[in-house]
Amino acid sequence: IQSKLPGVSTTIFSVMSKLAVEHNAINLSQGFPDYPCDPKLVELVNKAMKDGFNQYAPMPGSTFLKEAIAEKVEKLYDIKYHPETEITVTAGGTQAIFTALAAIINAGDEVIIFEPAYDSYAPTVKLLGGLVKTYELAPPTYAIDWDMVKKLFTAKTRMIILNTPQNPTGSILSSDDMKSLIKLVTGTDILILSDEVYEHLIYDEQKHQSVMRYPELKQRSFIVASFGKLLHATGWKLGYCLAPEKLTKEFRKVHQFNVFSVNSPMQQAIADYLKEPKNYTEIGSFFQQKRDYFRNLLAESRFKLLPCNGSYFQCVSYSDISDEKDTDFSVRLIKEFGVASIPVSAFYQKATDHKIIRFCFAKEDTTLALAAGKLKNV
Amino acid sequence: IQSKLPGVSTTIFSVMSKLAVEHNAINLSQGFPDYPCDPKLVELVNKAMKDGFNQYAPMPGSTFLKEAIAEKVEKLYDIKYHPETEITVTAGGTQAIFTALAAIINAGDEVIIFEPAYDSYAPTVKLLGGLVKTYELAPPTYAIDWDMVKKLFTAKTRMIILNTPQNPTGSILSSDDMKSLIKLVTGTDILILSDEVYEHLIYDEQKHQSVMRYPELKQRSFIVASFGKLLHATGWKLGYCLAPEKLTKEFRKVHQFNVFSVNSPMQQAIADYLKEPKNYTEIGSFFQQKRDYFRNLLAESRFKLLPCNGSYFQCVSYSDISDEKDTDFSVRLIKEFGVASIPVSAFYQKATDHKIIRFCFAKEDTTLALAAGKLKNV
Ligand SMILES: CSCCC(=O)C(=O)O
Ligand SMILES: CSCCC(=O)C(=O)O
Repeated sequence: IQSKLPGVSTTIFSVMSKLAVEHNAINLSQGFPDYPCDPKLVELVNKAMKDGFNQYAPMPGSTFLKEAIAEKVEKLYDIKYHPETEITVTAGGTQAIFTALAAIINAGDEVIIFEPAYDSYAPTVKLLGGLVKTYELAPPTYAIDWDMVKKLFTAKTRMIILNTPQNPTGSILSSDDMKSLIKLVTGTDILILSDEVYEHLIYDEQKHQSVMRYPELKQRSFIVASFGKLLHATGWKLGYCLAPEKLTKEFRKVHQFNVFSVNSPMQQAIADYLKEPKNYTEIGSFFQQKRDYFRNLLAESRFKLLPCNGSYFQCVSYSDISDEKDTDFSVRLIKEFGVASIPVSAFYQKATDHKIIRFCFAKEDTTLALAAGKLKNV
Repeated sequence: IQSKLPGVSTTIFSVMSKLAVEHNAINLSQGFPDYPCDPKLVELVNKAMKDGFNQYAPMPGSTFLKEAIAEKVEKLYDIKYHPETEITVTAGGTQAIFTALAAIINAGDEVIIFEPAYDSYAPTVKLLGGLVKTYELAPPTYAIDWDMVKKLFTAKTRMIILNTPQNPTGSILSSDDMKSLIKLVTGTDILILSDEVYEHLIYDEQKHQSVMRYPELKQRSFIVASFGKLLHATGWKLGYCLAPEKLTKEFRKVHQFNVFSVNSPMQQAIADYLKEPKNYTEIGSFFQQKRDYFRNLLAESRFKLLPCNGSYFQCVSYSDISDEKDTDFSVRLIKEFGVASIPVSAFYQKATDHKIIRFCFAKEDTTLALAAGKLKNV
């Protein structure tokens, strides 16, 4: 059997989480909390099941949930998406990314990706016969030079994938970035896939620059969001995609054959839960405290902290500590020091190694303190 | 924007379920129960959430669930699948079908489909750049002439999609079918995608002819199964794919980027629930009673019953009643008689109309009686 993805092996997230378990290490690798999600939310799921929401949800998502999403978006950004025609509930953010790409990318189409990037983007584009045009960003700021982006444009450019706040770097796009982007795409038919799963996790009074804030971008964008990240329940695998009607139409054509519809009692529960705005407005300050706590602890180590403006990831450089490849270093960190991280080279197709690893700080303070204690010995 | 699926509109299941709601009709269209799933199962999900199973499940599925699936398969068929390397949990049967196709089909590959067929197969193949070679089966038996199948083979034939028990016809493949199939594929590298989501719903002491029973087929097959169908909880969107290691490897490469992993508390709960074999061995007789009950009721109507050997669908011909197209007839049946069905032409790419509609009998006996009462007036 000839593989369609010959270079691909198991994602780094599975590999590191598995290693962490095997070595009984503190797992700051894959992005998920180690504390419980809100018992009220759990109770709402229980109630939804008991109320009989156990059969197929409507294909594009439960009506209640789509309306709740529209309300949340309007409250947060003062922008309207129509529940009936512009919002689709998916089995997580990853699935929304896959479906948007599958709906749009034809063989030979080019997709611009900024690296380091979540490791699903490039293989998904390739699986669909598309070509990935990669722009490698550099630490510590991972800033984008938009003139360089322009140089990647060809007649075949079909899509640009954005990710703000960015996984793994915690960098965010500014309004200047957005203005530069608008200049570049205006007059083209280039589409945007904007992975905004960390939209709520943005720090120091900064404003999340969602593409939806810019009409010129909004009209050509699929925006991907995640309830797993928002609700501290990554295992529920619920997310959604916002897109103007003409894009949503194509999205749903694929969605209906990819998964048909998604988990119905959980959709019902989340719709109820979102009625309380503080269930989504307070998460930013919650994680900002964790970020500050973890950064303060790490300041006492030999690791050099990179900026973290958003997401629940903190990148650090170990170049003062070791010359090892980041993949080797992070494995050694598990085995010898009992802390699991993700080597940032895993977010580059060429495995570019800047001697940087990523920690997830969506953890109990006690976990972060314990981990930092171990990291001080490195 | 140029559509990748220009001919595709919203699936018939969404259309008819929506119409049923709008006209307050008895909904025998889409395949889902109208009675509650087992409260014990609901309680197990509640427990799993409370026990903290709310973060990412392992990418290929929870270890407990994969082991429970392996046990179930061994109990039912006396055949081994290795949980670690041959079983992957998916967000429903539909997703398993999509992922298997996405993992295998390259541009120009040909896939043989028997129609009437579940409406995801053909568009998914086309989305991936594959070509669909269709063999239209005819009522009332929908039997396959394997010499005709052979005529569809070309150097480009990559896959055959089977579906037994079949949706929508309720027909099943016999051991003779399987032997003919073995003769056809032996010595080729043609793969099989076997949609067996109704494996437990097989009647009159007949034996489910899973491809796994035949080593020559097993080694080249992806087998798709559904917990939604088995557990009367279609809205939970949980299913799985069985395939030998070399195929599972390719399947998971796509799975990890399509959805990454699937609902974790529900996986945990289902694993617990499957420990009790009667939770999967008694469903056949449960539905056989419903089939018999519904058929007896319909015998008093002017509809002609087609055979139903498996699945929870009963097809009927209305050729004695009307000349209308089945799409028109089924809409009229909703509006004038208050019963929703699915026109079987929706399962043919060419909308071939044999004047047959499909009823789902996964309903309370009272619902079936009520519907039959209305259908007697037609
Ligand atoms: C499936 S892992 C999704 C992204 C994430 O959580 C991570 O980067 O660790
Ligand atoms: C998403 S509908 C899946 C199949 C089914 O239930 C049907 O054929 O009605």
